[in-house]
Amino acid sequence: MSLQAVRYRRGSLQILNQRLLPEHSVYEEIPDVQAAWRAIREMQVRGAPAIAIVGCLSLAVELHQREEGASREDLASFALESLGHLVTSRPTAVNMARAAQELSDFVTREVKRPDSTAESFKENLICRIEAMLDKDIQDNKSIGNHGAKHIISRAKTEKVIILTHCNTGSLATAGYGTALGVIRSLWSMGCLEHVYCTETRPYNQGARLTAYELVHDKIPATLIADSMVSMAMKEKGISAVVVGADRIVANGDTANKIGTYQLAIAALHHRIPFYVAAPSSSCDLTLESGGQIVVEERPGKELTDFNGARIAAPGINVWNPAFDITPHSLITAGIITEFGVHEPGELRKALTDNAHRDTSHTC
Amino acid sequence: MSLQAVRYRRGSLQILNQRLLPEHSVYEEIPDVQAAWRAIREMQVRGAPAIAIVGCLSLAVELHQREEGASREDLASFALESLGHLVTSRPTAVNMARAAQELSDFVTREVKRPDSTAESFKENLICRIEAMLDKDIQDNKSIGNHGAKHIISRAKTEKVIILTHCNTGSLATAGYGTALGVIRSLWSMGCLEHVYCTETRPYNQGARLTAYELVHDKIPATLIADSMVSMAMKEKGISAVVVGADRIVANGDTANKIGTYQLAIAALHHRIPFYVAAPSSSCDLTLESGGQIVVEERPGKELTDFNGARIAAPGINVWNPAFDITPHSLITAGIITEFGVHEPGELRKALTDNAHRDTSHTC
Repeated sequence: MSLQAVRYRRGSLQILNQRLLPEHSVYEEIPDVQAAWRAIREMQVRGAPAIAIVGCLSLAVELHQREEGASREDLASFALESLGHLVTSRPTAVNMARAAQELSDFVTREVKRPDSTAESFKENLICRIEAMLDKDIQDNKSIGNHGAKHIISRAKTEKVIILTHCNTGSLATAGYGTALGVIRSLWSMGCLEHVYCTETRPYNQGARLTAYELVHDKIPATLIADSMVSMAMKEKGISAVVVGADRIVANGDTANKIGTYQLAIAALHHRIPFYVAAPSSSCDLTLESGGQIVVEERPGKELTDFNGARIAAPGINVWNPAFDITPHSLITAGIITEFGVHEPGELRKALTDNAHRDTSHTC
Repeated sequence: MSLQAVRYRRGSLQILNQRLLPEHSVYEEIPDVQAAWRAIREMQVRGAPAIAIVGCLSLAVELHQREEGASREDLASFALESLGHLVTSRPTAVNMARAAQELSDFVTREVKRPDSTAESFKENLICRIEAMLDKDIQDNKSIGNHGAKHIISRAKTEKVIILTHCNTGSLATAGYGTALGVIRSLWSMGCLEHVYCTETRPYNQGARLTAYELVHDKIPATLIADSMVSMAMKEKGISAVVVGADRIVANGDTANKIGTYQLAIAALHHRIPFYVAAPSSSCDLTLESGGQIVVEERPGKELTDFNGARIAAPGINVWNPAFDITPHSLITAGIITEFGVHEPGELRKALTDNAHRDTSHTC
């Protein structure tokens, strides 16, 4: 079974403490919203989709445990307050803000329904949150399935060898993963020979998290430094590169973890298909091209220090962009969403068409 | 003044202890051959050319301090024994073995000369070793000079921005450096705007050593992760890439620190001139092409651990090739040796022509 970083059943939430990974696998109980706020703030849970789902689920757990007697208005204010508080845990994590907005709108609508009671309000809100979890995982599994089939249909060998970057698995999402979801699907279909994962400097998400997930799932995998990618492409028979995305804009240009752009250039040079895998919620059609995305620059300390010890020469300047933009022309094999595999030029139409067909899931 | 990692004057040798870098700059006295052997073995000095020169200079120092009275035969056996011993300090460092062979041949010839005395033998051998030091530094300065002029003559701006990889400076050579020598020359000519140096995973020679040299020489420089190279090429106006070489074969294919091949691909993609800088002694005309070079694979621990602490997930496989081969077609701007800047296809002829002209230096 694939790694479960978020364990939820009604009234109970546990998360795999990412601060103790990869050495120790410890699940922490999250009994209420405040515990989730702390876990997010202290980076026990990371990855924008994972943060959002843990925040929302903590609200479902606390709501479930509320004794009876509260009015629906009390429950509604508690929910709105909690969501507002959760957004402050890591203000740059856009998914939490987006999920909080979505749930706040739901709360505001529900509380106004003439037929709603405190009990039905609570039940509907919990259901709404549980549906988010289900939908996120279902979307990831669809991404995995679409991506795997596409890769297999174009592969020259029966089993494929995939190269990936950063962490896009259960530890970054509600579960299963995006690019790592594609790898999981290939593995469960019996079509995967091997995975190469980059260590992903400077924060080592590949070495710490992706490697952890691959070892956990017993998927045959090898860790390489980011600088070894081109040599691996030349010598190791890589069938395709699959990476995730922080944001995909209307023309298909993709912001993702620093190093993705270089991977795409190397893939083009070796004529290896290059895929981006992400849910449609990571697509931002309000921006036309990647040039409009502002790239966050992070503290130099991430490069110069490790575990408090200095690696780099004192006094050296550092440039530490957190992500880069891969132009759509380098995404040679397609963008994989829960709707299918799209040519970058067809992304806008595919999303618009499917948005009309898509209906919200509730339990 | 550029960093001096080896301080020599007749009868005295000091080396900058690289194990304490970049935090502490401590020079260690090397009074004899055994101290050099230990310093090499314990990696206080690293880099094949640096190892060779420190080993040989330690023999010069010990010879100088020998009291009078020994016969020339005694001195010759002592020298031959010492050279044999030095080669065992790090058997894979080819330059030490090559230098030892050259000096052993010299010793064998000298001791047979009918007019040689103990005193003249000692003097000639010390002079021969000192000439090696002078020639190495002189060759590096020629490399720097040729490379800098070539870069300037083709640059679109008055001052240039250079990207380099790994450490090729005073800490890896007898002094001044090869690729870093080119950077030093550009700086001293007033034609250098900025340097970007990669951290050079997994052993971080860029972050630890190159950054240290650049800070020491007050050359404006910025450290980046290996995965940031392409983004830097796109956004930072890089004028040229200059790297060193472990070995250059007859057709110009070049073995160098892992990551060099990827840099060359990225440079081609961005149409940035790509140079390799190395002394002619790093050229191996006995091999026709890079495919014949065996690439050393090093322990996975270099990637998975830092200062004894585990970074990567336990149980993950690692592939850790120490260097890669850059095909000559990607060396778009030329190979810089002490003789000039050569098109890869003209390397063999240039070396053969100059070898005939070159005469051994002695004092």
